Amino acid sequence: MVKRATVALDLDAVFAALAHPIRRAILEQLSGGDASVGELAEPHKVSAPAISKHLRVLEDAGLLKVEPEGRVRRCHIDAAPLSAAFGWLTRYRVLWEDRFERLAKHLEKDP
Amino acid sequence: MVKRATVALDLDAVFAALAHPIRRAILEQLSGGDASVGELAEPHKVSAPAISKHLRVLEDAGLLKVEPEGRVRRCHIDAAPLSAAFGWLTRYRVLWEDRFERLAKHLEKDP
Repeated sequence: MVKRATVALDLDAVFAALAHPIRRAILEQLSGGDASVGELAEPHKVSAPAISKHLRVLEDAGLLKVEPEGRVRRCHIDAAPLSAAFGWLTRYRVLWEDRFERLAKHLEKDP
Repeated sequence: MVKRATVALDLDAVFAALAHPIRRAILEQLSGGDASVGELAEPHKVSAPAISKHLRVLEDAGLLKVEPEGRVRRCHIDAAPLSAAFGWLTRYRVLWEDRFERLAKHLEKDP
């Protein structure tokens, strides 16, 4: 049994973690299945410490879990923080789209 | 007619813009309707320059348009970059949830 730290959902950290193309690519890769740190580093032309830093940002945001498996560190995704970010966007997207629809109707009536 | 700069959709900038509670609060406020810079600053206990900086971050990410209206600067939301962020999350959320469902089924079969 692997001990896991409880990571509080922190929208600031989640959105900040998503604000880098390498971190989004890592999450995209992990969507297909768990991967080792080496497998995650492979597609990117950056140093090992740079990848470790990105993984740490994802881990701190609660998006990634790293677990030792023999000599390898296996990474997998934790979707809960993603759902929180998704929830925030969904809530306000509805309001924004509603405003656009009302504006469009207003313009139809009163061109 | 107000001239508008074309803002390229930049997911890095959009997610980074969403990674601050004051900027999210500004977007939440603007979901209810356009507002002046003063009205947006009012709920927050931070300096005017700090609010201006947050508005600039939102503007640079393409989430906010500021237009002069007499002496007042009116702010309104632009939902296109939000849709891009939403699209990214939606795409990977489906994959992640699919993985969780498969894992759950696997655990049911093989407890």
